[in-house]
Amino acid sequence: MGVLFLFTLFLQKISDLDLLKYHSDFLTYLEKQNFTREPKNLYEPVDYILQLGGKRIRPILTLIASDIFSGSHTEALPAALAVEVFHNFTLVHDDIMDDAPLRRGKETVHEKWDINTGILSGDAMLILAYQYFENYKPAVFQKLAQLFSKTALEVCDGQQLDVDFETRNDVTIDEYIKMISLKTSVLVAAALKMGAIVAEADEEQAQHLYNYGLNLGIAFQLQDDYLDTFGNPDTFGKQIAGDIIENKKTYLYLKALEVANTSDRENLLNLFNGKEKNIEEKIKQTTSIFTDNNIPQHTQQLIEYYTNKSFEFLDIMTLNEDAKQGLRTFGENLMNRKV
Amino acid sequence: MGVLFLFTLFLQKISDLDLLKYHSDFLTYLEKQNFTREPKNLYEPVDYILQLGGKRIRPILTLIASDIFSGSHTEALPAALAVEVFHNFTLVHDDIMDDAPLRRGKETVHEKWDINTGILSGDAMLILAYQYFENYKPAVFQKLAQLFSKTALEVCDGQQLDVDFETRNDVTIDEYIKMISLKTSVLVAAALKMGAIVAEADEEQAQHLYNYGLNLGIAFQLQDDYLDTFGNPDTFGKQIAGDIIENKKTYLYLKALEVANTSDRENLLNLFNGKEKNIEEKIKQTTSIFTDNNIPQHTQQLIEYYTNKSFEFLDIMTLNEDAKQGLRTFGENLMNRKV
Repeated sequence: MGVLFLFTLFLQKISDLDLLKYHSDFLTYLEKQNFTREPKNLYEPVDYILQLGGKRIRPILTLIASDIFSGSHTEALPAALAVEVFHNFTLVHDDIMDDAPLRRGKETVHEKWDINTGILSGDAMLILAYQYFENYKPAVFQKLAQLFSKTALEVCDGQQLDVDFETRNDVTIDEYIKMISLKTSVLVAAALKMGAIVAEADEEQAQHLYNYGLNLGIAFQLQDDYLDTFGNPDTFGKQIAGDIIENKKTYLYLKALEVANTSDRENLLNLFNGKEKNIEEKIKQTTSIFTDNNIPQHTQQLIEYYTNKSFEFLDIMTLNEDAKQGLRTFGENLMNRKV
Repeated sequence: MGVLFLFTLFLQKISDLDLLKYHSDFLTYLEKQNFTREPKNLYEPVDYILQLGGKRIRPILTLIASDIFSGSHTEALPAALAVEVFHNFTLVHDDIMDDAPLRRGKETVHEKWDINTGILSGDAMLILAYQYFENYKPAVFQKLAQLFSKTALEVCDGQQLDVDFETRNDVTIDEYIKMISLKTSVLVAAALKMGAIVAEADEEQAQHLYNYGLNLGIAFQLQDDYLDTFGNPDTFGKQIAGDIIENKKTYLYLKALEVANTSDRENLLNLFNGKEKNIEEKIKQTTSIFTDNNIPQHTQQLIEYYTNKSFEFLDIMTLNEDAKQGLRTFGENLMNRKV
């Protein structure tokens, strides 16, 4: 899906940002890594998960940011790989916690091997991620590792909140936004800022780019929630309505509880409390409550709000117009995606 | 056990090394940390495991090393805590992998909470460990983090080899020493070297101290294997003969297979293949095969070999005699321990 996704999304080249070049350079750099060292039971799963593919959005953002500030993306390859290895570490451990059998259409690490292998290989990946920063001089190394640690801990916080929300019935929309911000957006934001750090950009500019990424990341996750229920099953990569099946308290669900009348509200609560055993019926009824209450429109509005908020940070950056336009187009395409 | 252990072992003060002071300063520093932040389901287990106690040998070694080279141990407190937090991270994840119900006489994290909590809180601890290095300037930070990453990955390698050995019947003594070296000794060695790095000691001197720790760590683990079978049940902290019950291929077992006659060899293989269902009988017979084949003496000899090897690295260090004598006494006491 990776390259196809990029073709669809970016039509090869956006302003001066050659996304396909970043993508292929990243894959070449990834290929060069030797993850199949000894003991092989520890490192084969690392190689396996990293070769499963994915859109590689985060490492590409690191390369974009570096290119924007220094005119070169290659120096940022180790930092980009650190981000991708960390992201895949979270997938390995999250899949254990979610008892997920499949990842990108293939067996998850703990399914292919076992839970202990998933835990230990995941641990090794978290450490490997830090090691990529050793390619940089001490001052840059420290900035990268510091941002990385802060971000990684926030991702753990977000994952814990997500788990906590499963058993809570009083989750607010603000709390939900906070959770997805920690679980998803801070890594998108940090991926961008790391590129800026490698390019030794001005700290204020780097922080604006971080905030662009943070808000775009929230918009991206809300879009993911929207597509999970209202996406085209032929192009959306995951099972449609997976969130409904798993009683996920997404923005769609929380907003519906807020705006619906008593009857719809009670029906929705019952549907998410396991009252409807027929899955098809549950999906149909939930979707129709969402539609009746304009949840798609509410969601699109919020996506737009966060997208615009992200663009405001571009506006105040002292960056050439081409680069700004590239990042704007990147955001717009991301929000118009069908996958 | 912590303070009692230190009293027994060091009689309060060895040369200029005030071990009780290091111990109490470390505990004070640990107490000051706020591990009970939000989300509490993530950080309470971190606080819990760090408060369970333990001998705190590794962080004390970091303080010793710093004191030896700079005359001050307090600057090394963050690095010492990083080592201790990392060590406890390995305990949390290892206990999940070993399905262990108890740690230091109390419930393990995954027993008190659940496996998912153990995984995620463990991950957070690994990241927290790196964050303590942020207390140092960039050049020191990079050296510490670099040594830490290398060491942490080696500990993962060692853990994987330990798992691999469970299902292998051709483990050699060399492989076993390599495994315990990775799983246990490199962290002891790194703990010392980190203190030297904080004190900005000469790299060659720091490496000698590392090698002192590496060999002492191997001797320490061999002593642990010895005490597991031949220790005094009243003073040894763990269940006596736990290794025999779990069919652990320790040095005692591997050496017995090497030196025993065909009959003893076959009996030992049968005992470790589950032929003897009566646990008391299994322990009795195994212990007697070990004794008949002079395994206690063989083990003591190897402990002495590694202890002496560690002291050789002290000999070539350009350190004042008091400090050297302190480290020698530390090693000797560690090898004469009953706990």
